[in-house]
Amino acid sequence: MRILDTKNLSVPGYKAWGIHSGIKKTDKKDLAIIYSDREAAVAGVFTKNRVKAACVVLNAARVKSGKGQAIIANSGCANACTGKRGLADARATAEIAAGELGIRPDSVLVASTGVIGEFLPMPKMATGISTAVGLLSPSGWEQAAEAIMTTDMYPKLAVVQEEIGGKTVTVAGIAKGSGMIHPNMATMLCFIMTDANISAPMLKKALAASIEKSFHIITVDGDTSTNDMVLCMANGAAGNKRPGAGSKDGRKFQACLDAVSRSLAKQVVRDGEGATKFVEIEVRNAKNPIEAKRAAMTVAKSSLVKTALFGEDANWGRIMAALGYSGVEMDEARTDIYIGKTKLVEKGQGQGKHADREANLALKQREVQIIIDLHKGKAAATVWTCDMSYEYVKINAAYRS
Amino acid sequence: MRILDTKNLSVPGYKAWGIHSGIKKTDKKDLAIIYSDREAAVAGVFTKNRVKAACVVLNAARVKSGKGQAIIANSGCANACTGKRGLADARATAEIAAGELGIRPDSVLVASTGVIGEFLPMPKMATGISTAVGLLSPSGWEQAAEAIMTTDMYPKLAVVQEEIGGKTVTVAGIAKGSGMIHPNMATMLCFIMTDANISAPMLKKALAASIEKSFHIITVDGDTSTNDMVLCMANGAAGNKRPGAGSKDGRKFQACLDAVSRSLAKQVVRDGEGATKFVEIEVRNAKNPIEAKRAAMTVAKSSLVKTALFGEDANWGRIMAALGYSGVEMDEARTDIYIGKTKLVEKGQGQGKHADREANLALKQREVQIIIDLHKGKAAATVWTCDMSYEYVKINAAYRS
Repeated sequence: MRILDTKNLSVPGYKAWGIHSGIKKTDKKDLAIIYSDREAAVAGVFTKNRVKAACVVLNAARVKSGKGQAIIANSGCANACTGKRGLADARATAEIAAGELGIRPDSVLVASTGVIGEFLPMPKMATGISTAVGLLSPSGWEQAAEAIMTTDMYPKLAVVQEEIGGKTVTVAGIAKGSGMIHPNMATMLCFIMTDANISAPMLKKALAASIEKSFHIITVDGDTSTNDMVLCMANGAAGNKRPGAGSKDGRKFQACLDAVSRSLAKQVVRDGEGATKFVEIEVRNAKNPIEAKRAAMTVAKSSLVKTALFGEDANWGRIMAALGYSGVEMDEARTDIYIGKTKLVEKGQGQGKHADREANLALKQREVQIIIDLHKGKAAATVWTCDMSYEYVKINAAYRS
Repeated sequence: MRILDTKNLSVPGYKAWGIHSGIKKTDKKDLAIIYSDREAAVAGVFTKNRVKAACVVLNAARVKSGKGQAIIANSGCANACTGKRGLADARATAEIAAGELGIRPDSVLVASTGVIGEFLPMPKMATGISTAVGLLSPSGWEQAAEAIMTTDMYPKLAVVQEEIGGKTVTVAGIAKGSGMIHPNMATMLCFIMTDANISAPMLKKALAASIEKSFHIITVDGDTSTNDMVLCMANGAAGNKRPGAGSKDGRKFQACLDAVSRSLAKQVVRDGEGATKFVEIEVRNAKNPIEAKRAAMTVAKSSLVKTALFGEDANWGRIMAALGYSGVEMDEARTDIYIGKTKLVEKGQGQGKHADREANLALKQREVQIIIDLHKGKAAATVWTCDMSYEYVKINAAYRS
């Protein structure tokens, strides 16, 4: 597998673009289109929030066919909590795009992100879609990635290539994240495009597996949103032989999908609202995999741990306290905690001022690793999070003003 | 029941005081003693965190006897995650106090709050206890309340009186809270003293009932700590006839205990780290009481809701999203949301700019009420929380420095 520079991102058979259509009050881009020149296999994973945006409701039904050809995504308005009118607007968005692209309306998927409870400005959407379709380009991915941003600081892209079934296959993706990032999922949109020739059921399975290793192990603030989704299209333009289930080619494709998903998930955490650090939390030797992940996620979500990380203070008592209320089987007197390479706690006891100093130094880095060894079993789990800074509060206190 | 001014707080048969003993690096008070001139019935409720501080382990064993006569509490050092030495230090603290007071060591309860993972400075504790015992006074409650503060902005006291069994009975309490306030419980210490004559089993039951209506319905940041406890002493100095189970006098005593607990719990939320607002969240017509409380607590804990409250922005979409991921049965299209007296959302739909403006005005107050009507059943629950400000991050990023 080759990891390519996203500057020259292109995927055979696909075009993309992003423009400012007027949904956002500023002059920032707010409308993205992704188009495949032929029908593609599609798969999707959607928010588990009981309150689902119109686009989630619409797409969840549409991906069941396993087919699709275009994605229309807007930022600035989530079209969530908008009832029947919201659903009609989502459907109309797909119809307008289908008309402009000359494809079937039910092969268009839609995605929205932004403020909840407001209606989409449909006349602006119609004009915007028409303009954006006219600008579609094989190299328009950065524009598309910019157009789905909300409080994101930078666009998120990833691309890899691999030889599969005798052909070069490309897998690329764009994503937006920022606040509310959390498993099951957050105001997080991710669109992955590949020219691989692969069956829809296999694509669905591969996507689900990838997400368990990427978007489902990240958390920024513990909130999950109404709009999140990962969509994946595979249009077969590479002309490779379809990989069979359990085949070597199947594993190679999975590895590509994993690499793109994990790269984008990491970018989402790095760009968490107000984040100054990327933090990996690994729990080792938990009783079982569920407890390992729960322990890691509880530490990752603790506001007290996250503010201590921002303060570059190796306050391990807060990690221990979070483990204590996580609900997993743990015994303080068996627990070891490492920050970076420093063993800060052994069998529940702090290792003194020298260890504290070393850990505080490790916390000054942009990337921090915390390892927790529960000595209770053999299961492990890793999650990714960021610290919590003044900026987080500032961004979220002022978001709608 | 009469609610009295805490300036003149005194409870027959009790003395208290608080001093600076040198545990804290600043010159702030850090050691409190509460003493009853006769053996009292005692009851306690302790953190459910699996990581328990030495004082919690010690007291949980001691309150089983239902008897006690003094409480020694320190701030600045939590004596948590300190292993066998920590437990020995807690025991030694009680012994030193017992020696100074001339009472049995096992009738002394201890409480600590502060940084986790550091040992108590025992020589300073010994000198401090000796000094504080010499200063014990019937009116030393404000000093004691100050000495248990950590990041608290002000001491928390409450006192009520009632005629019970033909006598005037006083119920008073002091508490400290600030960060990590959350049910089950947080770095929260609360000591309630009464001169009521009441049996230990009845006191235990009454305390448990009070806590369900007070400390178990509050949350500041979702973290629960290793040290939290509520201790209640009843020394019988009022000379009232013991109230029987289910009696009118029993209900009057319960009402007094509830009033003191609820007042202190509210004070803890009002003084949450960086809090600028007291927020009451009421969920109505949930499927059952557990779901009602879970829904209210999920909204109360959401960082996105709390930052929006700080920003005085009636961003109801975040409330809806939190309800959606709370796991309770809800249907967006049935849900109403009120802020203050303004119906902001009816059947899942925003009620327009006029309602938004009215709600934003209500959010400018220091006390905010949010009512959520799920229209799913008949159960209700109320929780208390505060907003999340820059100050929260600042306080917690710098706590140990």
